[in-house]
Amino acid sequence: MWNRISDAFMACDAEYRDARVVLFGAPFDGTASFRPGARFAPRAIRGDSHGLETWSPYWERDLASCAVFDGGDLELPFGNPQAALALIEGYVSSRLRDGKTPFMLGGEHLVTLGAVRACAKVYPGLRVLHLDAHADLRDEYLGEKLSHATVMRRVWELVGDGGLFQFGIRSGEAREFAFAGDHTVLHPFDLGGIADIAEALAGHPVYVSLDLDVLDPSVCPGTGTPEPGGVSFRDLQEALAAMHMLRVVGCDVTELSPPCDPSGISVAAACKIVREMLIAICEKQ
Amino acid sequence: MWNRISDAFMACDAEYRDARVVLFGAPFDGTASFRPGARFAPRAIRGDSHGLETWSPYWERDLASCAVFDGGDLELPFGNPQAALALIEGYVSSRLRDGKTPFMLGGEHLVTLGAVRACAKVYPGLRVLHLDAHADLRDEYLGEKLSHATVMRRVWELVGDGGLFQFGIRSGEAREFAFAGDHTVLHPFDLGGIADIAEALAGHPVYVSLDLDVLDPSVCPGTGTPEPGGVSFRDLQEALAAMHMLRVVGCDVTELSPPCDPSGISVAAACKIVREMLIAICEKQ
Amino acid sequence: MWNRISDAFMACDAEYRDARVVLFGAPFDGTASFRPGARFAPRAIRGDSHGLETWSPYWERDLASCAVFDGGDLELPFGNPQAALALIEGYVSSRLRDGKTPFMLGGEHLVTLGAVRACAKVYPGLRVLHLDAHADLRDEYLGEKLSHATVMRRVWELVGDGGLFQFGIRSGEAREFAFAGDHTVLHPFDLGGIADIAEALAGHPVYVSLDLDVLDPSVCPGTGTPEPGGVSFRDLQEALAAMHMLRVVGCDVTELSPPCDPSGISVAAACKIVREMLIAICEKQ
Amino acid sequence: MWNRISDAFMACDAEYRDARVVLFGAPFDGTASFRPGARFAPRAIRGDSHGLETWSPYWERDLASCAVFDGGDLELPFGNPQAALALIEGYVSSRLRDGKTPFMLGGEHLVTLGAVRACAKVYPGLRVLHLDAHADLRDEYLGEKLSHATVMRRVWELVGDGGLFQFGIRSGEAREFAFAGDHTVLHPFDLGGIADIAEALAGHPVYVSLDLDVLDPSVCPGTGTPEPGGVSFRDLQEALAAMHMLRVVGCDVTELSPPCDPSGISVAAACKIVREMLIAICEKQ
Amino acid sequence: MWNRISDAFMACDAEYRDARVVLFGAPFDGTASFRPGARFAPRAIRGDSHGLETWSPYWERDLASCAVFDGGDLELPFGNPQAALALIEGYVSSRLRDGKTPFMLGGEHLVTLGAVRACAKVYPGLRVLHLDAHADLRDEYLGEKLSHATVMRRVWELVGDGGLFQFGIRSGEAREFAFAGDHTVLHPFDLGGIADIAEALAGHPVYVSLDLDVLDPSVCPGTGTPEPGGVSFRDLQEALAAMHMLRVVGCDVTELSPPCDPSGISVAAACKIVREMLIAICEKQ
Amino acid sequence: MWNRISDAFMACDAEYRDARVVLFGAPFDGTASFRPGARFAPRAIRGDSHGLETWSPYWERDLASCAVFDGGDLELPFGNPQAALALIEGYVSSRLRDGKTPFMLGGEHLVTLGAVRACAKVYPGLRVLHLDAHADLRDEYLGEKLSHATVMRRVWELVGDGGLFQFGIRSGEAREFAFAGDHTVLHPFDLGGIADIAEALAGHPVYVSLDLDVLDPSVCPGTGTPEPGGVSFRDLQEALAAMHMLRVVGCDVTELSPPCDPSGISVAAACKIVREMLIAICEKQ
Repeated sequence: MWNRISDAFMACDAEYRDARVVLFGAPFDGTASFRPGARFAPRAIRGDSHGLETWSPYWERDLASCAVFDGGDLELPFGNPQAALALIEGYVSSRLRDGKTPFMLGGEHLVTLGAVRACAKVYPGLRVLHLDAHADLRDEYLGEKLSHATVMRRVWELVGDGGLFQFGIRSGEAREFAFAGDHTVLHPFDLGGIADIAEALAGHPVYVSLDLDVLDPSVCPGTGTPEPGGVSFRDLQEALAAMHMLRVVGCDVTELSPPCDPSGISVAAACKIVREMLIAICEKQ
Repeated sequence: MWNRISDAFMACDAEYRDARVVLFGAPFDGTASFRPGARFAPRAIRGDSHGLETWSPYWERDLASCAVFDGGDLELPFGNPQAALALIEGYVSSRLRDGKTPFMLGGEHLVTLGAVRACAKVYPGLRVLHLDAHADLRDEYLGEKLSHATVMRRVWELVGDGGLFQFGIRSGEAREFAFAGDHTVLHPFDLGGIADIAEALAGHPVYVSLDLDVLDPSVCPGTGTPEPGGVSFRDLQEALAAMHMLRVVGCDVTELSPPCDPSGISVAAACKIVREMLIAICEKQ
Repeated sequence: MWNRISDAFMACDAEYRDARVVLFGAPFDGTASFRPGARFAPRAIRGDSHGLETWSPYWERDLASCAVFDGGDLELPFGNPQAALALIEGYVSSRLRDGKTPFMLGGEHLVTLGAVRACAKVYPGLRVLHLDAHADLRDEYLGEKLSHATVMRRVWELVGDGGLFQFGIRSGEAREFAFAGDHTVLHPFDLGGIADIAEALAGHPVYVSLDLDVLDPSVCPGTGTPEPGGVSFRDLQEALAAMHMLRVVGCDVTELSPPCDPSGISVAAACKIVREMLIAICEKQ
Repeated sequence: MWNRISDAFMACDAEYRDARVVLFGAPFDGTASFRPGARFAPRAIRGDSHGLETWSPYWERDLASCAVFDGGDLELPFGNPQAALALIEGYVSSRLRDGKTPFMLGGEHLVTLGAVRACAKVYPGLRVLHLDAHADLRDEYLGEKLSHATVMRRVWELVGDGGLFQFGIRSGEAREFAFAGDHTVLHPFDLGGIADIAEALAGHPVYVSLDLDVLDPSVCPGTGTPEPGGVSFRDLQEALAAMHMLRVVGCDVTELSPPCDPSGISVAAACKIVREMLIAICEKQ
Repeated sequence: MWNRISDAFMACDAEYRDARVVLFGAPFDGTASFRPGARFAPRAIRGDSHGLETWSPYWERDLASCAVFDGGDLELPFGNPQAALALIEGYVSSRLRDGKTPFMLGGEHLVTLGAVRACAKVYPGLRVLHLDAHADLRDEYLGEKLSHATVMRRVWELVGDGGLFQFGIRSGEAREFAFAGDHTVLHPFDLGGIADIAEALAGHPVYVSLDLDVLDPSVCPGTGTPEPGGVSFRDLQEALAAMHMLRVVGCDVTELSPPCDPSGISVAAACKIVREMLIAICEKQ
Repeated sequence: MWNRISDAFMACDAEYRDARVVLFGAPFDGTASFRPGARFAPRAIRGDSHGLETWSPYWERDLASCAVFDGGDLELPFGNPQAALALIEGYVSSRLRDGKTPFMLGGEHLVTLGAVRACAKVYPGLRVLHLDAHADLRDEYLGEKLSHATVMRRVWELVGDGGLFQFGIRSGEAREFAFAGDHTVLHPFDLGGIADIAEALAGHPVYVSLDLDVLDPSVCPGTGTPEPGGVSFRDLQEALAAMHMLRVVGCDVTELSPPCDPSGISVAAACKIVREMLIAICEKQ
C-alpha cells in the first residue's frame, strides 16, 4: 500500500532483467495530416487495459504468465521528427542489446521507422510484415521525406525488394500501387494469404507493424484517417495467430487516436490486440 | 389531450389486467466496475423506441397487437445491492402471481439475480439461457459475492448443474472457464448451436438473460465493458428467433450504458431487440 | 495563392462547361422527425473528402480524371418543404438542360423528390433505384404529404407501377410493405439481386437514390433514424459497382447527419461512396 | 406500483381541475437555421428535473406546494409552421378558457407566436416581456414570414407599439435595431432596468418569453445560435424575481437544444429556471 | 529510462518518509444518484496535471518545493459503501499515525466520511470546513443512511453542533436548511465571510472538504449534480487562500465526474485547485 | 448560381485589390504539447461565422462595409516548424508589400512568429501586444527552440526590451516571470490597464497577438491548454475596443482547438472576436 502509483499495461509487471518483451510508448503524432491524437494512445491503452481479463480464451493462455516489462513512455519532442526517430532508435537498440523484444505503442505510424532502423542493424535480412489500410509508400508528402504517409517507403529503403509484405491495403495514390507492384508484396483489401506468407517467412527475423486502421472503421473508429471497407476484428485476430509461426524481433501497434474514439471501443480493440500479440510472442519463445 | 404525460415503450399500452407481458425497468448499476451508466438504460430505451416502427418485417407481426403493460421503473437504492435485489425479486414475484411474464430492462447484469430468484421459486426445473461476452462465473469480485461479475455463479447456485446455458462467451478468468466446463453448458465466441439447445429445452420453463455486450462493440458500443470480437446484429436476431420455441417465463435485456453511446446506435439496437423479443414471446403464447 | 478560398469536394475542379457531372448540396432537413442534422452533410462531406485519396483501387481509376463541377449548396428555406422542392427541381432542370448529370448531396430524403420531378419530366420511362433501410411509402406522416417518410410514395406517383426498385428495406408499417407488394419491386433486408435488376434496367434512364441508413448503424451511425441490421460497406460498394451497367441520369446520397457522427466514420463512409459513385458514372459515360 | 410510467416535470402532479398552471411542451424546431435540436428540449427538461430539489432556497418556497399540471407534449407536424402554430394556439386558448396559466416549453422561438396569439385574443392590452440575445425583429428570413428570426416582429404586429419590451439583446441586423428604436422598448446587452419595467407593467396582463440564449454561452451552451457576451445565471435569476410583480397570463422557455449540450449544464440551467418561474407565478397568485 | 512507468500528480515525487502531505485517490461513486463517474476522477486529475505548470503565480511558490507523496488509489469495492468507508478510514488513520496530512481525491462526496472518521479520532475538537452547492444534510436518502446526500449529516454526528461550517450552499430540502439553522453554520449561495471564519478557526484542527459543484457549472460542468448559480473560479481561489490561516489536518476534493466533462475544463479546474491547495497546506507548515 | 463554392468568413468578399485587410489561415499545430487540434480552427471559424450577424451593435457598424479579402489557408508541412514559419513569413511579407493589413487565423501560437518576423522587417520599432494565459517565454521546450511555449521569447528577440506587452498572463515557470520582470511589460491575471498602454502606444506600429486561452475556460473551453481563472468575454471585448486607438499593422487569433469544443461555444466566441477585431481595424483606418 505504500508503493508509488503505477499504471502499467495489465499484468506487465516483470522485472526488467527477467523480461523477454519490453513494452513502451512512443507518443508522437507530429506529422499526422488529418486527425491528430495518436500521442494519447499509450496512456489510453494502459488505462483501459484493466477493463479486460488477462486470460485469453483464444490461446488458452494467461498474459500473467508472460514476462513483460512496461518501460513507460519516451519523452519525444513535438515538431522535430528527426529527433523523435533518433530517440526511438536509440531506445530500441538498447533493448535489443539486452536481448529483449521491443513492443512499441505508437503514436502515428512514422514511429515505426525508428524501431525498424534499430532492428535492421541488428538483424540482417529483416522482413517487415505490414498491416494497414494505407500503402504509406509515397516518396514525399507535402514536401517532407519523414511522414506517416511515407514511412513504408523509408522502411523499404532499409529492407529492399522482397523485404516488405503489406496486407489489407485499400488506399493510396496510383503511384504507390505501381511502386508496390515493382518492389513490395502487397495484398489489397483484406488479410487473405497471410498464413502462407507467415509460413514462408519462418526462420527469418520479422518486424510486425500494425496500423490499426486496417480494421474497419466500425470496429476501430478512433484512428487518424478512417478508411471504410476494412477487416473485422476476427479477421485480424486470426491473422495475428499467424504470428506464432514467426520469429518476431520487434513489433508495434500504431495510429490509435483516443480523441476520435468517443465510445471507447477503439481503445478496447487496441488493448485486446496488444494482449493477444504479447501472448503470441511469448508463446513462440 | 388532457391526459398526463406518458413515456412508455412504444405500443406497450395494454391495461394491466389484459396484459400478458409486463415490461419494467431496474435502473441499478451499483456494482459496475468499469464504466457505469446502465441506470439510464430504461429511460433511454423507452424514449428512443418511438424512432422505430411497431411492425416487424422479420416476424411479419405488429407489436401493437401484443398485450404489453409498461410498469415503469423500480426505485432502487444505490449502494445497497441486497436491498435492490430484494425489491426486484418482490416485484417479479407479484407479476408471476398475477400470471404475467416479466420483461426486465436493466441496469447492470446483477439485476438478473433478483428476477431469477423469483422465477426459480415459482418454476422448479427452471433453465436459464444466458447470452453474454463474459462468463460472469466468479465466486467473488473485489471481495463481494454480489456483483455483475459473479451474477451467473449465483444463478447457477439456484438452477444447478445443467440448468445454465451460456452463449457467445469470449472473456473470463481461466477459473471461470474451468468452472463452466464442470457445471454449465458454455458455447464460446458465438451463438452457434443455440437453435439445437432451444429445441432441447422445449417444454421446460426458461428464463432468458441477454447481456447486450454479446454483440460486437461496433454494433453496441454503449456497454459497461466492451469486448471486441462479438456477434453481429443479425446473428443475435436469428438466435432470438429461437425464442419462439421456448416457454419463456421471464427475461431481461441488460448492460446498455447510454452515456457510453454518443452516436445512439446502441440504444437503437436495444430498442429493436426489445421489440423483437416482445413479439417472440407473444407469438409463442 | 491570391485565389479566393474554395472548399469543393476533392478533385471536383472542372470548369462548368467541361463538366459531365454537377455535384451540389441540398442542405434541407425540415421534415426530419427523429434526429435532425442532415443539413450539415454537404459541408461535412466536402471538408472531410480531403482525408481520402482521389485514386480508387477498386476501379483502378482516379477521380481527378473525371470531369466534375462542384456547384456548391442551394439556399433552401427552412420550414417550407414546397418551396425547397421547387428550388431543387429548378436547379436540376437547368443542369439537365445543359446536358449535365446532377449529383445531389442531401439533406434529408425528401430532397430526392425535387430531383426526381425534374428528371421524370426530361426522361419519360424513368426508373428509380432506391437503397434504404426504410420503405418511405406512407401516404401521409403526421398529416403531411411531404415528408422524409412519404418521399418514395410521391416518387411512385411520378414513375408508376414497375418504376420503383427498392433494396435493403428493413423497416416500415405493415401498410407500406403491402403497398410495395402491389406497386413496387421491394427486396427486403439486403442488396441481393441488385446486379440482376441493374442488368434488366440497361438502356432505361435511371435515377439512383441512396439513403445512407441502408448501411448498418455500425458502419454509418450518423443518420437520422439508425436501423440495426443493415448491410456492410463492402455489400454496398459491390452493389454500387452495378451502377456502371446503368444509364444514370441523376443520383443522390442522403440522410447523413454529422451531429450524430461523433467519431467521423459516417462522414468518411459518405465521402468514399461519393467518390466511388462519381467514378462509376464517369466510367460509364 | 401498478401505475403507468409517468415522466412529468418534478412535483408537477396536480390534478388538471385543481391546477393553476399548465406546463406543456411544444417540440418544434422546423425553422431553426443554424443548429436544430430544440425539439428534444421538453423531454430533456422533464427528465433531468429530477436531479434538482423541489425546494427553492431563493424563494424559500417549495414547488411541491404549487398546483401545476404537466400536460405533456403537443404532437406538431415538422415542415409546416402554420399548422404547428395553429395547434399551439388552439391548445393555449383551451387552457385560458379553463382559467389556467399556460407555461410552454419550446421548441424554437417561433412557438411563442402561437401562444401569444391565443393570449392576445383573451387579454386586450397584452404586454410581452422578451428576454433574448437576438432581436428577432426581421420581417422575413430566407423569404419566409414565419421563422425563429421573425417571431418578435410578428408578435409586435399583435401587441403594437409599446407592447413589446426586449432585454439582453446583443445581436441583430442594423434594420432590426432601427425598427426597435421606432416600435419597441429594447434594452441592449444586459437585463438592467427590468425591475423598473416590471413595476411599470403592474396590472397589465403580461406574457413572458424567455429565449435561453440571453444567458452567456458559458452558462447555457446548448442553444441553436450561441451568442457570446450574455448575462450570468444570477443576473437572470434576479430578473426573473421581478416576475412576482407581474400579472403573468402566459409564459415560455425556448431554444434549449440538448444535442448541443454535451455536458448537460444547459438542461440543468433550464430546469432550475423553470422551477423558479413556476414558483414565481404561483407566489403571485 | 529503465524505471517503471509512473503517473503521479505532477511534482508529487517526494519519498514517503520525507513527505508532509500524502495524496491518494478514493475512486468510489457507488451511491451517486444522478450522474455517476466520479470514480474516474483521480486518474483524470493525475493525467491532466501535466498540462499545468508547477509554479503558482498566485502564491509565487512552486509545487516542486513541497514535499508530497502520491500514494496512488485505494481499491474499493463497488456496491458496498460500508466496506469502502472502512478502507478509507484505515488508510487515513495510518497516514495520520505517520504524521502525514492526508489529501484525498474522490470519488463521490460520501468518501469524506471515511477520512473525517479517522481525523476526528486523532483530533478532538475537529472542525470541518465544507464548500458545496448542496447541504448534504439529509438523514436518509432512498432509505439509506450512507449516501452522497447524507454525508454531512453523518459528519455532523461526529463533530457536533458548531463543528461544521458550510459555504456556497444553494440546494437542499427545506428540512436540510432547517437542520442547518439549528446545528451548523451555513452560508448560502456564495463564499462570503469565509476569511472571517478561517480566522476564527485559527488554532483548531480543521478538515477541509471541497465538493467541486460549489463552482458554477460553467466553470466545472463535470460533476454528478450540476447546480446553476455557483461561484467563479476566482471566488474559490480567494477562498482557498484562507486555508493558509488554518491548521489543516486533512482535506479532500470530490465529485469531479470526467465522463460529464467532454471539453476537459472541469478536470483542468480540479488540477489547478489541487495544486493551489497543496501549496497552501505546505505554505502553512 | 454557376459560381464555384466559396466558404469565406462572412462578408469578407472584397476583391483583393480593393481590400484593406487580408484574412488568412495558418492551420499548423505541430508543436502543441497537450491537446492538438488548432489546425482545424480556420475552417471552423469560417463555417460557423455564418451563424452570426455582420452588424456589431457594440460598434454600431457593419462588417459588410469593411473591405476584407479572405485569402484561404496556407498549406503548411506538418512536422517541420521552420518550413511552416518561412511560408507564413513569405505570405505576410507579400501582403505587406501590397499595402494590406494581414489578419492571421491560427493554428497554434507558434505561427505568430512567422507573421511578426515579416512585420518587424517592414516596421522598425514594432510593438507587440500579447493577450494570453501563458507567458510563452521559455527559451527551450523539450529541447526545441521553436514551440508554442517559446514563441514570445523568440518575438522578444525581434522587438527587444520594451517591445512586448503581455496581458492576462496567469501561467508560466518561475523563470518566465523573472524574465518578464527584466524584459517585457507583463500584467498578470487580467486585462487591467490595457487602455492606458494602448494610449501610450499611439503612433507606433503594433502587432496584436491574441491567444484565445486568455479567456476563462468556461467561455472558451476549446483550446490546447485550458487555464482556469481567465477573463470574461466582456472583459476581452472591452480590451479589444482599445484597438481602435492603435496603428495595427498585423494581428492574429490563435489556439482555438475545435475538437476540444464539443458544444461549439469556443468557435462562436472566436467568430465574434474576429468580427469585432476586423471592424476595429477598419474603423481606425
